Amino acid sequence: MTHTILIDCSDAKGLVHKVTGVLYHNDLNVVSNHEFVQPETGRFFMRTEIDGNMDAERIHNGLSGILPADANVRISENRKKRIVILVTKEHHAVGELLIRHQFGELNAEILAVIGNHDVLRGFVGQFGLPFFHISHEKKTRDEHETEVLAKINEFSPDYIILAKYMRVLTPKFVEDYNNKIVNIHHSFLPAFIGANPYRQAYERGVKIIGATAHFVNDNLDEGPIIMQQVIPTNHTQSPQEMAQMGRDVEKITLANALKLVFNDRVFVSGNKTIIFD
Amino acid sequence: MTHTILIDCSDAKGLVHKVTGVLYHNDLNVVSNHEFVQPETGRFFMRTEIDGNMDAERIHNGLSGILPADANVRISENRKKRIVILVTKEHHAVGELLIRHQFGELNAEILAVIGNHDVLRGFVGQFGLPFFHISHEKKTRDEHETEVLAKINEFSPDYIILAKYMRVLTPKFVEDYNNKIVNIHHSFLPAFIGANPYRQAYERGVKIIGATAHFVNDNLDEGPIIMQQVIPTNHTQSPQEMAQMGRDVEKITLANALKLVFNDRVFVSGNKTIIFD
Amino acid sequence: MTHTILIDCSDAKGLVHKVTGVLYHNDLNVVSNHEFVQPETGRFFMRTEIDGNMDAERIHNGLSGILPADANVRISENRKKRIVILVTKEHHAVGELLIRHQFGELNAEILAVIGNHDVLRGFVGQFGLPFFHISHEKKTRDEHETEVLAKINEFSPDYIILAKYMRVLTPKFVEDYNNKIVNIHHSFLPAFIGANPYRQAYERGVKIIGATAHFVNDNLDEGPIIMQQVIPTNHTQSPQEMAQMGRDVEKITLANALKLVFNDRVFVSGNKTIIFD
Amino acid sequence: MTHTILIDCSDAKGLVHKVTGVLYHNDLNVVSNHEFVQPETGRFFMRTEIDGNMDAERIHNGLSGILPADANVRISENRKKRIVILVTKEHHAVGELLIRHQFGELNAEILAVIGNHDVLRGFVGQFGLPFFHISHEKKTRDEHETEVLAKINEFSPDYIILAKYMRVLTPKFVEDYNNKIVNIHHSFLPAFIGANPYRQAYERGVKIIGATAHFVNDNLDEGPIIMQQVIPTNHTQSPQEMAQMGRDVEKITLANALKLVFNDRVFVSGNKTIIFD
Repeated sequence: MTHTILIDCSDAKGLVHKVTGVLYHNDLNVVSNHEFVQPETGRFFMRTEIDGNMDAERIHNGLSGILPADANVRISENRKKRIVILVTKEHHAVGELLIRHQFGELNAEILAVIGNHDVLRGFVGQFGLPFFHISHEKKTRDEHETEVLAKINEFSPDYIILAKYMRVLTPKFVEDYNNKIVNIHHSFLPAFIGANPYRQAYERGVKIIGATAHFVNDNLDEGPIIMQQVIPTNHTQSPQEMAQMGRDVEKITLANALKLVFNDRVFVSGNKTIIFD
Repeated sequence: MTHTILIDCSDAKGLVHKVTGVLYHNDLNVVSNHEFVQPETGRFFMRTEIDGNMDAERIHNGLSGILPADANVRISENRKKRIVILVTKEHHAVGELLIRHQFGELNAEILAVIGNHDVLRGFVGQFGLPFFHISHEKKTRDEHETEVLAKINEFSPDYIILAKYMRVLTPKFVEDYNNKIVNIHHSFLPAFIGANPYRQAYERGVKIIGATAHFVNDNLDEGPIIMQQVIPTNHTQSPQEMAQMGRDVEKITLANALKLVFNDRVFVSGNKTIIFD
Repeated sequence: MTHTILIDCSDAKGLVHKVTGVLYHNDLNVVSNHEFVQPETGRFFMRTEIDGNMDAERIHNGLSGILPADANVRISENRKKRIVILVTKEHHAVGELLIRHQFGELNAEILAVIGNHDVLRGFVGQFGLPFFHISHEKKTRDEHETEVLAKINEFSPDYIILAKYMRVLTPKFVEDYNNKIVNIHHSFLPAFIGANPYRQAYERGVKIIGATAHFVNDNLDEGPIIMQQVIPTNHTQSPQEMAQMGRDVEKITLANALKLVFNDRVFVSGNKTIIFD
Repeated sequence: MTHTILIDCSDAKGLVHKVTGVLYHNDLNVVSNHEFVQPETGRFFMRTEIDGNMDAERIHNGLSGILPADANVRISENRKKRIVILVTKEHHAVGELLIRHQFGELNAEILAVIGNHDVLRGFVGQFGLPFFHISHEKKTRDEHETEVLAKINEFSPDYIILAKYMRVLTPKFVEDYNNKIVNIHHSFLPAFIGANPYRQAYERGVKIIGATAHFVNDNLDEGPIIMQQVIPTNHTQSPQEMAQMGRDVEKITLANALKLVFNDRVFVSGNKTIIFD
């Protein structure tokens, strides 16, 4: 059994020494250790992996005694994260996660896939996983979202993954799952915010297209960026071909970003991420 | 001696056959041949490289006889292009061009470097090339630009290269050198248009930064894109470090874009480029 | 209906003119056209896409009349290619193809998956496709391969895809399907030929790992390269983590290479490919 | 003034706590901290940046008291490294370093450039730096190298940079400057070891070419790799064009690798590097 300790607090002299002291005096074996102080906020971030048995409560108390009052301390067993995936009609991002999940490569347990359309029911079923269709038709945004949230809450997931879920979330939803919702955006943010990014990219004549995996905050395309990847394009490619190439980069970018998130390697600080990889 | 024939016109059946017929009946040796029809404009683009002696006027007349009335035909000897470089204070983009020029790798002759500041005079002089300081201080934009244009016109350059020239050009300037001005922009356009892109990139917490080489039209950051390149970044890098990394990608992107332009491989169609590489 | 015409022959003056003449006089609409002359062989390669109805035999005869005697002319309807996939135990490469196939993104029809182990039977079955287990145990290489070839021949495939098939093919097999077998190799060839490339890469301390999709000739890791892709790695990654990252790049590299092959964009010339993309 | 403390030793419980304790009790301000334990050697590596005044000897003694007996401790002021560059005839790698040096971007002081040919004398002189021609003609390898070493030793450099120095070094030379010699190799090692790598790459028909910056040990192309970078190529490019593209990637790869080395971010462990970037 291994554990990960995640600490963030205002910076102070001797923090690493004090934190590692608590671990040392509890006879814990540190496998890896990362620290970072963000210049513009003066905030200290630390991630420590522990091998072997550990009394999490005792360590938590020990750390509370030596850290500044504003510290957040999270101690997580290195178990698979529990996730719910939201989709609309596109298969590629969810398909990548379903295959990795089936072969134990996702470091997460997919509890359910929820779609506002029914088109991916069969596909998800092929992988033996439950699919719930919650149509948005003839409902207000609030009504639809309340149903979706109710279904999600049944599963108490650690994270919600928007795998090409083409609906804007309300601030209420985002607040309930603060820094727990990961989206894959079909462009190299902040370029081409909004609809039809590949059409936009085609019309602008760009030579590279990309994808951005990010946490969702109030504004769909504006949350903290976890990972970005790109591929070259050229004048011969139609918007449809760009979109197909984009799907490849989207699915790999999402899967790689989730690997970081599920391994507790990502801190959020304001609108940015700090990633210890 | 080799020549390049560049044709663009509205598409019609048999164009390749007819063009290559003119070349064949003139006993010319085609080294390479590229064609493309742009779907949204229905426009035909063709680039042909000829090896051996050629009567350019005769070929021009022959092609005019078989091409649509709206055809543009350019026949260029494959000689070095004549260029003038505009700079402000930064050395990296112009430095890359000066070194390549010195060792015959640029496929261009640098006729002059003009700066609105005097700081790069010594650096340019190290390479034995003329530097002209035309200060913008105490002058209107028009007054300054008139002086700059007058100096440029003395050299009758094929192309003007903005190697980190931090002044916006007037529409008049751009019109005089339509599709003959290449700029290197310090971001992955269309992200981070405008000032301080690395500061913007830092604040947005992006994971990739890039550079864009493009022709200049009326709007400084909006012309047809020739080349884009990117490099990864992360949360540990300050805006200054991002800027330093950005300089590397800027200078290589500009040099590579110019290689395409100087080898007559780039067509402009509206706000896009068609590149036969 | 569209067709693709693929020609390769020794170079001669006027070939493009003559070929396009046959097409023009048959009133065919050329959508795209690529030519290349390979310097070291003096061989001419041409790929032409035709839109609209076409009498393939008539065009074939017309081209034979004007091309050198050593010309190969292939005219293919742009239909889905018919393929058989060979696997061993790993799921990622075949999984990528199964998903693209299900959603019509592969431009191929998967006729069967054949494994020398039985572990992927269930996985292939999830996609509703036939899986055949032909064990190599207690058989000579020739005996096993004869069985595999017999099964493959039942389907008369256009191409055989080695999606992490960990068996060396005999020269007889390769000869039967000359330039029709595509393999994905788990390294950036020619680095790390042979077994355990990720272990080799780890021990050499490389900073980039890659994958190579190539046609198979006599020597498993030596055929004409179609596509290569890479990803960065570093000292913190174990051979297992490198292998997992490698699987991502392998599957995308294979899928992208097959897209080129299935769209008739790849010529083989000796131990190299010429790709019109 | 900042300092960097570099420690490597066999791993033991509590090392980070003990090291940071020495720093804390000396009232030092830790700016950044990295640790890594190499699995296959069980060796601990730590890099710490200190801001403010520091009594290096006192810290050295303090650390010696708490670290295992096999520990190497290096404390370096963050000053520019002193370097000598060795060249043959090619300008691109040394040119990149000369320009960065002139504008204070190299974090190193170039003391001298030594060439076994005289062709770059003028070029180095343009940057106001001393060039020494030590011809290898009519000398044994040992005789030539003795002269080169004598000249190098006059400058007592921290590092020797082989910027396309096309001579194999003797074991004696390498031993004298163990882990202090950085070479740029014109291929993606371990592919294409030896002469004419671009010719080899062309003949193999690879789709990507690369460069490798590495420390030199006994075997010229076999030392610990610091950085590797790649660029795509295709069938249209001649060996000469591949070589030109290769020069771009070589010079940037070398410059970026040196940035890591000169900032004390690179440990060598056996034939590998551990890089804290």
